[in-house]
Amino acid sequence: MGKNLDNIIDHAKKKSALGHASSMLNWDSSVNMPKGGAVVRNETLSQLSVMQHQMRVLKEIPHWIEGARQELPLENFSDEKRLWWKKNLKLMEKSYKQSTLFTDEFVQRESQCALDCEVKWRTLRAENNWHDFAPYLEKVVAITRESAQIRAKAFNLSPYNALLDQFEQDLREEDFIGIFNELKQKLPDMIQIVVAKQKSRKMPSLEGNYPILKQKELGLELMKMVGFDFDHGRLDVSLHPFCGGVSRDIRMTTRYNEKDFSDSLMGVLHETGHAKYEQNLPTEWGNFPIGNAPGMIVHESQSLFMEMQIARSAEFVQLIAPIIKKHLDFPLGMQELQTAYKKVEPGFIRVDADELTYPMHVILRYELEKAMIMGDLQVKDLPGAWNEKMQNYLGISTLGNDRNGCMQDIHWPSGGFGYFPCYTLGAIMAAQLKVGLERAVPQMNKQILAGDFTQVDQWLDTNIWSRGSFYNYQELLTHATGKKLGLDDYFTHLKTRYF
Amino acid sequence: MGKNLDNIIDHAKKKSALGHASSMLNWDSSVNMPKGGAVVRNETLSQLSVMQHQMRVLKEIPHWIEGARQELPLENFSDEKRLWWKKNLKLMEKSYKQSTLFTDEFVQRESQCALDCEVKWRTLRAENNWHDFAPYLEKVVAITRESAQIRAKAFNLSPYNALLDQFEQDLREEDFIGIFNELKQKLPDMIQIVVAKQKSRKMPSLEGNYPILKQKELGLELMKMVGFDFDHGRLDVSLHPFCGGVSRDIRMTTRYNEKDFSDSLMGVLHETGHAKYEQNLPTEWGNFPIGNAPGMIVHESQSLFMEMQIARSAEFVQLIAPIIKKHLDFPLGMQELQTAYKKVEPGFIRVDADELTYPMHVILRYELEKAMIMGDLQVKDLPGAWNEKMQNYLGISTLGNDRNGCMQDIHWPSGGFGYFPCYTLGAIMAAQLKVGLERAVPQMNKQILAGDFTQVDQWLDTNIWSRGSFYNYQELLTHATGKKLGLDDYFTHLKTRYF
Repeated sequence: MGKNLDNIIDHAKKKSALGHASSMLNWDSSVNMPKGGAVVRNETLSQLSVMQHQMRVLKEIPHWIEGARQELPLENFSDEKRLWWKKNLKLMEKSYKQSTLFTDEFVQRESQCALDCEVKWRTLRAENNWHDFAPYLEKVVAITRESAQIRAKAFNLSPYNALLDQFEQDLREEDFIGIFNELKQKLPDMIQIVVAKQKSRKMPSLEGNYPILKQKELGLELMKMVGFDFDHGRLDVSLHPFCGGVSRDIRMTTRYNEKDFSDSLMGVLHETGHAKYEQNLPTEWGNFPIGNAPGMIVHESQSLFMEMQIARSAEFVQLIAPIIKKHLDFPLGMQELQTAYKKVEPGFIRVDADELTYPMHVILRYELEKAMIMGDLQVKDLPGAWNEKMQNYLGISTLGNDRNGCMQDIHWPSGGFGYFPCYTLGAIMAAQLKVGLERAVPQMNKQILAGDFTQVDQWLDTNIWSRGSFYNYQELLTHATGKKLGLDDYFTHLKTRYF
Repeated sequence: MGKNLDNIIDHAKKKSALGHASSMLNWDSSVNMPKGGAVVRNETLSQLSVMQHQMRVLKEIPHWIEGARQELPLENFSDEKRLWWKKNLKLMEKSYKQSTLFTDEFVQRESQCALDCEVKWRTLRAENNWHDFAPYLEKVVAITRESAQIRAKAFNLSPYNALLDQFEQDLREEDFIGIFNELKQKLPDMIQIVVAKQKSRKMPSLEGNYPILKQKELGLELMKMVGFDFDHGRLDVSLHPFCGGVSRDIRMTTRYNEKDFSDSLMGVLHETGHAKYEQNLPTEWGNFPIGNAPGMIVHESQSLFMEMQIARSAEFVQLIAPIIKKHLDFPLGMQELQTAYKKVEPGFIRVDADELTYPMHVILRYELEKAMIMGDLQVKDLPGAWNEKMQNYLGISTLGNDRNGCMQDIHWPSGGFGYFPCYTLGAIMAAQLKVGLERAVPQMNKQILAGDFTQVDQWLDTNIWSRGSFYNYQELLTHATGKKLGLDDYFTHLKTRYF
């Protein structure tokens, strides 16, 4: 190899080692750590994060990238490998630029603001105390506006697009503003119709008594069935379920509700979607940007493909109904289970929302965060604006109930602005991928009914997993389905399922 | 603070963060990791170890230490704190010197030799294949001799003392050669007498059927009773039990034998001795040498104090007999349990050896490793020399049985020469501490009978735990018991227990 490529590879190995350590320690903090370990653990995580930052801003990196570009044609690489390196160097360059935009003082101040606000959020949300929380959120919004402007200038983007681009490569507001407008126009009516329809008949209840150990066995069996690789991952329990670890050693978590097994079951299948994506990313590029997901839209498209397109489908419910009965004392039939899964009900909480109301939660947050970033909405006016939109979109009021209103999510307190749109765009991408897959594998639904996911996985691997970040989300979709992200397949899916 | 002290503190924080990460990842590798995670995990551990090495040999360190010495008198420190810093700087200086003695090339070669030999050991030991194993061990011995000579020259010590000093601060062969000679002289006869005595009566068998979950509950209850702090630690299962993690977050492991609960029980209590020591080291000095144990003698003195002096005592057995019966279907009485714990039987395997035969295993290894390091014994002659000593010391032959002879331990294959003496010196130190404690707390045995370890812990904390490495093992003993390490209390203990 050339000297510059060697340096890049060495440096990436060291950075990945720190990333691996941080990732596992974060998992351990949620799953194993005794509470007295928190102080030294947080000190360690903060030191590791400083070291990772120092590695990201190393002065030699742009020279290595430039040098590597010169070395590429000389290397004994295949054309494809050369193309991947070329794209990878481009992604590394962008990432270096993003990391070096800010002074150490700014980075420190920004993360301190977010840390302070998040800590306050944990207690003040529980107390429904907006009054004391607002000043902390104001500081986070102020510094995020500052950082958005610096990013915007550096990348020649609008401030909000600069924030979006952090969470999904090349994501621009212009690409989804039409999509969100159409959803706003059509979804509220659809929700009303479905709710009215469901009111007219009795919805089956899934409540019962489901021992945790049995639920765990059920979850493990289904994870295995849909292709989670237990040689490269495991399932544990944590308060807030997540999919962590590293590609070759995925640490997935869930939590169990003894009264309702479907919380954990659907959660496990959702996270398995994330996990399978991570487990099947191109290992040989794992230390580089190109070996990782292009962003949260694509990641959510994989978890929501598993949850919304597979796990809640008629075929899958038919497949797993007897497996559920094998593990749990569950009196209902397949038909009733399916009906229960389709329940639509406007509610306060995004993470508890059903498939049909979820996008309205996202659009509301998108509109409010954009307005705050652009200076069109003051933090002090957030509860009122939130309530107004909840009334308009879902017909419910959050007046005086900020705990279940604008204080419910961890994203803003921790400085995450520009993330929310990815959830709904991921859901739309998942629906579009499903149609593409059905076209390529017409027997797909029969295969699912038989518990055979081989061809489904092959198609996803070819079109999404194995591509890493070689393509951005729009390019991935275009290659896989022949078109950019759009609402046709999504609305077809919603209508078929709910009407 | 002064600038140099600040630099030292900052640097130590970063180094500790890497240490914390390595320690937890090692624990995770043994306890949680799916097998497919090993490749990337080992790569990460090796990168973290390189980074730690780079931090240890940082060129600025000696200048910081020198500068800090100048800053100390100016600081607003108490006299005691200043004394601790002075000693700490001395320990740091020694550690820096140890780390910088070798070229990178040598360090790399040494660790590669050990790694290769250890890998071969794992398969060749199982196959009892000395012939193929010997060349690997020869390489390890050769490079260890080289490194011992370099250390010897740098610290003006004999080569073997230079190796000993790595595992216990200031440990010298001259300090224990008399002790080992006396043990060699007296123990073989004592063993014969006890074995003959025990043959004349039926030894009770602990065999039975003990479910793992029940054994775990029992272990947890006893750990809690003897003062393991579950806010700062936990117990899990691994193939090879150990006590890992960090002082504020101890990760202890055990393994269960469903036929014999006492394997795990005594193992758990032994490791709890290590754990309590670690949990009670002076937290504020945790990132520095002075905040850690002076070495393996002192560490083993704490685990063996718990196991040999407390857990196998008449009072403790009386205390736990009803607790064992609460958890397990165990038909024997307290008296029989105590008798079973006193069984003496010469055997091949050091880690399975009883209290009375154990020192002979250690002395044999000490003599052989010293001879190899001094060039008086060739690796090819090791099996013969081993067999001869086993015959002399324990009356059993390992001819043709190298798996259970000179191939049984991981220490030599992984480059650990000079470690073995610490086991027996730790056992002797434990007996001496027990006598010191009984003098200070005459009601101690009554308290143990009542499950009250408050005063025992207070005494150990004052005399050992809170001292970190401010004193070396001899100084600790002298302060605690009024005399240096010696055999009087140890022989009294053995005679009382076995005669």
